[in-house]
Parts: sequence; C-alpha cells; structure tokens
Amino acid sequence: MTADVPRRRAGGREARIAARAHAHVERQPFLTRTLQPFEVVSEEGLSLLEENADTILEEVGLEFRGDAEAVRTLRDGGADVEGERVRFPRGMCRRIIGASAPREFVQHARNPERTVRIGDPYTVLAPNYGSPFVRDLDRGRRYGTIEDFRNFVKLAYASPHLHHSGGTVCEPVDVPVNKRHLDMVYAHIRYSDKPFMGSVTHPDRARDTVELAKIAFGAEFVRDNAVTISLINANSPLVWDSSMVGAARVYAENNQATLITPFILAGAMAPVTAAGVCAQTLAEALGGMTFVQLVRPGAPVVLGSFASSLSMQSGAPTFGTPEPALVLFTMAALARRLGVPFRSGGNLCASKVADAQAAYESAATFWPTILAGVNFVLHAAGWLEGGLAIGYEKFILDADQCGMAAVFAKGVDLSENGQALDAIRQNGPGQHFLGSPHTLANFEAAFYRSPVADNNSFEQWLEGGSLDAPQRANAIWKQMLAEYEAPPIDPGTDEALQEYIARRKASFPDSDV
Amino acid sequence: MTADVPRRRAGGREARIAARAHAHVERQPFLTRTLQPFEVVSEEGLSLLEENADTILEEVGLEFRGDAEAVRTLRDGGADVEGERVRFPRGMCRRIIGASAPREFVQHARNPERTVRIGDPYTVLAPNYGSPFVRDLDRGRRYGTIEDFRNFVKLAYASPHLHHSGGTVCEPVDVPVNKRHLDMVYAHIRYSDKPFMGSVTHPDRARDTVELAKIAFGAEFVRDNAVTISLINANSPLVWDSSMVGAARVYAENNQATLITPFILAGAMAPVTAAGVCAQTLAEALGGMTFVQLVRPGAPVVLGSFASSLSMQSGAPTFGTPEPALVLFTMAALARRLGVPFRSGGNLCASKVADAQAAYESAATFWPTILAGVNFVLHAAGWLEGGLAIGYEKFILDADQCGMAAVFAKGVDLSENGQALDAIRQNGPGQHFLGSPHTLANFEAAFYRSPVADNNSFEQWLEGGSLDAPQRANAIWKQMLAEYEAPPIDPGTDEALQEYIARRKASFPDSDV
Repeated sequence: MTADVPRRRAGGREARIAARAHAHVERQPFLTRTLQPFEVVSEEGLSLLEENADTILEEVGLEFRGDAEAVRTLRDGGADVEGERVRFPRGMCRRIIGASAPREFVQHARNPERTVRIGDPYTVLAPNYGSPFVRDLDRGRRYGTIEDFRNFVKLAYASPHLHHSGGTVCEPVDVPVNKRHLDMVYAHIRYSDKPFMGSVTHPDRARDTVELAKIAFGAEFVRDNAVTISLINANSPLVWDSSMVGAARVYAENNQATLITPFILAGAMAPVTAAGVCAQTLAEALGGMTFVQLVRPGAPVVLGSFASSLSMQSGAPTFGTPEPALVLFTMAALARRLGVPFRSGGNLCASKVADAQAAYESAATFWPTILAGVNFVLHAAGWLEGGLAIGYEKFILDADQCGMAAVFAKGVDLSENGQALDAIRQNGPGQHFLGSPHTLANFEAAFYRSPVADNNSFEQWLEGGSLDAPQRANAIWKQMLAEYEAPPIDPGTDEALQEYIARRKASFPDSDV
Repeated sequence: MTADVPRRRAGGREARIAARAHAHVERQPFLTRTLQPFEVVSEEGLSLLEENADTILEEVGLEFRGDAEAVRTLRDGGADVEGERVRFPRGMCRRIIGASAPREFVQHARNPERTVRIGDPYTVLAPNYGSPFVRDLDRGRRYGTIEDFRNFVKLAYASPHLHHSGGTVCEPVDVPVNKRHLDMVYAHIRYSDKPFMGSVTHPDRARDTVELAKIAFGAEFVRDNAVTISLINANSPLVWDSSMVGAARVYAENNQATLITPFILAGAMAPVTAAGVCAQTLAEALGGMTFVQLVRPGAPVVLGSFASSLSMQSGAPTFGTPEPALVLFTMAALARRLGVPFRSGGNLCASKVADAQAAYESAATFWPTILAGVNFVLHAAGWLEGGLAIGYEKFILDADQCGMAAVFAKGVDLSENGQALDAIRQNGPGQHFLGSPHTLANFEAAFYRSPVADNNSFEQWLEGGSLDAPQRANAIWKQMLAEYEAPPIDPGTDEALQEYIARRKASFPDSDV
C-alpha cells in the first residue's frame, strides 16, 4: 500500500508515538450509558419471538447430555423429562428466572476500583477469548503460549479502555490442556487486578477456579460475592453438554456468575433467518439459565448470544455482515424484557490480518454492540480469523475503538458550557474559534484522542515513514509491555496461590484433553 | 503484514475474485428504511438547541458576503439587515421553511429506474466529492484527472450499492478550473444514468449545469422537476459567500435541489462542543434554506451537516471520533423536527491509505449515518485523507459497506418463513441445519455476500496469495472498469451536449480560478 513512497525512518517518530500513547485518558471501571438502546423489532415482534421460544421449549425441548443430575434438577423444577430430552411447559423458564435471577450484579475485582457492574445501564468490555493462534507483525501467526497469554493479560490491564481481564485470551498450547487453567487463572490474578473469567472445560477446573479465587479474595467473601464470571456455551441446536453444564453447576453452587450463551453459526446450528436464530437462541438460553437458577436461586446469570452468518458457498463463518447485527439488536431487546443482563458482540472479523476488512467487520459488530446496550462484551479486543487467532496489533486497534465507545456512550453535554452559546455570541461571523476562551477552556478534553490513528498531513505521514495502522499499533503494544508494572499483591496470597497450583499439578498426570 | 508467509500466486485466484464480484446482488434505486432512527438527545434537549439557533440568528445573525441581491431578498423576507449582516427575528426561518420547503422530493435520473426519493424514510448513497488527489495501489497518490473522474463515474454506475453518480467525485486538475464543470457534468450524463450533482463554484457554472440538464432531460421537464442536486457550503462560522449563494440562487430559480451545508471542523469553525456545533449548524442552515425558499418557495432543499473534530495538538481535522457521531445523530433529529430532508455522513477518514484506520474511522461515521436515518449521503464511497484524496480500492471497500447497509435497513423478517419455527421443529436437538429444507429454500438470499471480504480458512487464504483487503479490491475495480458498458443515450442528445460544451469552452479563455 506504500509502494508509491520511499520508506525512510524519521528521527522523531518513536518519540511522537510514545507521546501519543501517553495522551490524557480518563479511566472508567465500566461504561455507564446515557442513551436509549436502538430497537429493530417492535414489542409485538419481540412478543412473537418469545412465544416461538416457548413453543420450541415445550414441543421440541432441549437435550442435557451426559449429566443425569442436571436432568433430575430440571425435572424437579417442573420440566417434562424423557431420557436426556427436557421439555419445558410454557412460561416455566421465564417464571423461574424472573423469580430469582438478578437484573444487575457486581463482579468484584482484586482492586476494588476495578470492580464492575453487570446489567443496565452499564457496559463492561472484555478482551478476546479462546483463540489457539496468536499473530503479530514481527513473528506472524503461530500457536499461542503462556507467554502470549500473560502478555495479553498485561495489555488488557494496561489499557484504560478494557474493563475486564477476560478468560482464555489465547490458548497457551505449551501447557498441558488439563493443567493450563491453573496457569491462566493465576496470570489473571497475578498480572492484573481487573475482574476475570474462570475455566469451563471440566467441572474440576471450575472448582480449581473457585479455590484460587478463595485464596485471592478470602473464602467468606467469595461465598457471598461474584468474583468470577464464566462462559457456558450451548452446543446448538438445542443441546447442553455435560462439561459446560457441570461447570455451570459448580459456579452456581458457589454463587459465581455465568454467561449462558448459545453459539450459533446461522445456517449450521440454527436456521438462516434472524427471527429463527433469535427464537432458538432465546429457547436455549432460557433452558440454561433455568438450570442455573434451580441449582442456586439468585446466582448471577447473563443471557448470552453469539451469532454469525455462514458463507453458504464454502460453509465458512462470516463476520461483519448485517444479519448478525440484526440478531444482536433483537436479542438485546429480548434480554431486557426478560430482566437479565445481556452478553454479546465484540470486535469480530473473519479477516486473517488487521486490515480494512478486519476493521470494517469489527465495527459492524461493535457499533451494534454499543448501540444495543450490551452489558458484557467478550471479544472487545484482539479477535481475528473468526476467533482462531488473537492479534497483538488488532488488540491495540480494537482497544482504541473501546475508548471511543466510552465517549459516545456519554451522549451530548447540554450544560451551559456544552451549549457554548456565549462563545458563538462573542466570536461573530467569520472569526475562527481556535483562540476563543471557550475553546481554550475545553480543548484538553474536547475530543477523543486516538493513540494509534494518524491525523497528520500526507507530507508529515510520508516523513514519518508512511506507517499503516498495524505498524503504529506494533510500536504501541511493545511500549505497553516494556512499561508494564504488575499491580501489587500480598506476598502470602501469591505464595498460597502458587502452592495450590503446584499441589494440583502434581496430583494428576499431564493430558491433552 | 504478510511477512510470515511466502507469497505465491494461485492459479484460480483471479477466477475466484471474478466469481465473487458477480455474486447475486439486489439492485435498489435507493434504500427504504424500516427502522426508527437512533436518538441521542431528548425532545427537551432538541428544543433547547432550536432555541439556541434562534438566539444566534436573532442576536448575532449571518453575513451574506458580496451578494447585495441576496441581502435584499432576505430583508424583503423579514430579516433585519445591517450592511452584509443579516439578523433573523425568532421563528422567521422556521416559518418560511415550514411554509414551502418540501418534506420529501424526487430527483430524476436519466434512466427513470434510477430516479431517487430524497426524504424520509429513504436513504440515497452518493460517492466521494471534491478530492484533488486520487490513489490506487498501482500508481499511488497523484493529482486527479478527467480520466480518473470518468473512472469513478463508471464505478459508481456499475456499483449496485450506490444510488447516485455524485458531483465532483475527484477534481480533474488536467482541465482548466473554469471549464472543468462542463466535462464533469457531461461525464455524469454520458457515462452514467444515475442522478447527479451540479457545479457550485460560480453562478455561471450553475447555469451551465442547468442548461446541460435541459438538453439531457428537456427544458420543459427541468422546469417542473429536480434533475440536479448541488452542494452549497457555508463558510462557517456564520458566513455565506457570494459564489455559493449565487449558485444556490440559480438552482432555486430553476427549481433544482440544493444541499445547504455548514462545513464545520469543530474547534475552528465552531465551538468544540457537540451542542455548540449543532446550534450553530442549525442557525447557518436555517439562514441558507430561508434564502432558497425566498428565491423560489417550494424549491427542493436539504439541511446538510458536515462536522468533524480537530486534533487540538496539531490542528488537523480528525475523523471517526465519537463527538461528530453525536453531532450527526443530533442534527438528523433537528432536521426531522424541521420537516426537511437531511444530508450528512459518509465513509469519512483521516487515514492516508485504505487500512484498518481508514475502515474503523469510516464505519464510525457510516454506522451513525445509517442509524440516524440520513436521507442523502455524500462521500459514501472512496474518501481518504480527510477528503484530500479518493481511493480506487477504498471506493470498492466502501461500496461493499453500502450494500450491507441496504440489508440492515430492511430490518428483521418476521414472516412465517422468517420465523423458521417449522425448521426448528423438524430438525431437533443436535442436528445441523445445512441440509434442512428451510435452509435450502433460503440460502441464496440468506446472507449478504461481500465481493471483497475473504472468509476462507487461513490455509486457503495463504494458498490464494495472502491478499489483504485493498489488494482484493484492486482486482475488483479493474474488472469493473474492464467490463463497463456505457448506458444508452440518444445520439442527438449527446451531440447537442457536446456542441453546447464546445461552444461554451470556445467563448472564454482558460483560467485556473
């Protein structure tokens, strides 16, 4: 893209990038939205989708596979059970969830200043989750390691625009599958003080997460407070698997929060139509949330929706298309009607690299995410390749978008200073405002300042080496890691965490399942 | 960005790109939105901004510079005049505009199938406007020529997602300034059959536009119908200059449409605050639209708003920041209250190249553009570098986003087929939907298919040469130009157009002002 200009390194480039990265930013523990959500379906339409979800739950039902205890719990709660097939009388799920699931809850962080509220009118932005691969400009695409994992925890900690440390920010494939959850949870606790997510790949790993949390927060505190939130995915269509259900049970029993999330590539795991995806998603989520509330009434639970379209030519998942955006807006409205927090969205893309495709696709999920009023946003930074990879440069670019969303969510300042009527009166026709007292009093905080966007003239940009956005982001993440300082932790706590992990790791052999 | 992979050319790549470019697309002459606009300011807040605009018009007023006739027109219409300063009694502008400006109007295209409606609930997408430079991957950045101009007219004609041919898609700097309007208007008429924009740089050039339109459409038809729409920019703050006012008068007298648009870099041409920008924009636009309605009551007129933020460090305009998005939503609401069509938005960016910055910034204007319900969208495709350049690849990437907006604007299909309840009933838990009769019946039109996004696996993408988005877009615009066929035109009409242009060009010497 820069074939037209000779590359040269300008002396002051690094210094300017450093200065930009340090520009004044306001650090908020989470967003408090002032704007009403955008609605794409009428109340009648939403009611119809709820009826359809109830019809699915009543006529077809859900399968809870390989977990007889879960089936018993649901039967005892009023469901019709036939083997692993669980059918729910109309209204049962809504009644149970409505009776005990909180509309909004607190997830505590190790640093109380980073504690988040999950529910309306708040939005919590968390990084990418679950990618086996990582990518950066220097080393390209490769399997993720525990070092990459720690790097992304550090970057999320250092970013003023991410509110949460996330969970499996990347898969640390250099650690055995059955032990890596211990290193991941430790990294979140040790290298960040933001709230974090727990392991869900086996009920035992959920238990380890809770035990580590008890060491970090105190057992008594954990009994009464959510200090973890964990991602429980359905195996759509209409199936809940034992590992996820088992993990959900552990978290619910311990009063820890879960994101009950149907993961749908429309056309494969659900019909191709938005209304079909929404009814099925709602049915699956209602079943999962009902299970959680039956395990422990009042356990914090979030209705999740992950929906993407498919290339009907190749079968590949596609991102940034308009249909999943419509699903997102619709599901947000359905969660509001149900009275539970909503998880969806992020900066999703199919692009392999942090190019224009990646950014257009990401924005086509992220703008709906913000305008729909999503409460918990996984994958807000770093996602590439349909989630197969997390990119260091993409992470920086996405986090910048998160910062802009924070400003947008505040809405228009209609104070006297915001109206600026005197400034216009004093200036008069034809006189610019650069030196106006109002401008001078407000310019520091007037506009969002991106650390990664280049707003210079073409000539200045040439002078600076014609860098594109990923090249500038590359310098920024390196600088953030170089300047990273771990948040303080009580040495006794740290020792106890490490001792627990060492003991657990020694107690069973390595395995890659 | 592809340093990690060896470049190789796959034999089937060109063929695949060609196939993608030919994927089935629905051609709509304009968008008909089904969704209610997103609102960022309450009715009380909007009312306050209207009061402030009236205060500005009453106390400070506007200057109409160098056009004594315009000042007389406004004085005769009820304004208080003091030299070139024109003050408007409270409510005067709103009353005059409300009495005669149409809520919605038709702009006729040479091909009646391309005729557009401008007003609610419609959205018309038009290409980039006004750039002196062009950029493509092969030749880099350079001054625009009449050949580039014609190329962009052809690309807009060939794109199913652009509804309008636009105006000065780029400046053809190889043609004298005082004659290039003739070649530009001719190119729009000859190489496209979509509606187009007229010249505004001098009243004589507006007259030439009208004369050429009369040849193309017939003098009688032009008398009664809008066949051109033209961009009249204020010289903010609070100034209307003679060239723009003179062009507006010519178009109004001929019942041709105008976009009355304050062009504001907040902090320079207006205060730094969103509410200040909105009140001033409304005041300036009210004054301009009032002038148009006084010249000819009922002449089609559009309230325009172009607002960007500034880098308060360098003074450079910035794009894609959250503050101008808030202005856009607010101005859209103010136009709706006034009862006139609204122009704003586009795919704006500060980036010099079609990279992730360009796409993130563009989306941060374009999503608000669509969700605010903008009626006429200039700069919907091609814009780079704060408008200094139009990019061939950026044009293709942006047009793709326009296609997605068309699908989004339709909203959720709640028909029985859309609900897909039987499909879910028949499928049951754990069975994928790829072979479902509902999927087979719907998959052709189920999801938007991007001709430029790569949704392949990482391995397929490597195999295809690891192309990034601009590289794929490069192949697409070349193919579109190679396959371009001019729409038919009556040979007598074409001859008359060329004869008029030759005569006019011969009648005065070349000049570069």
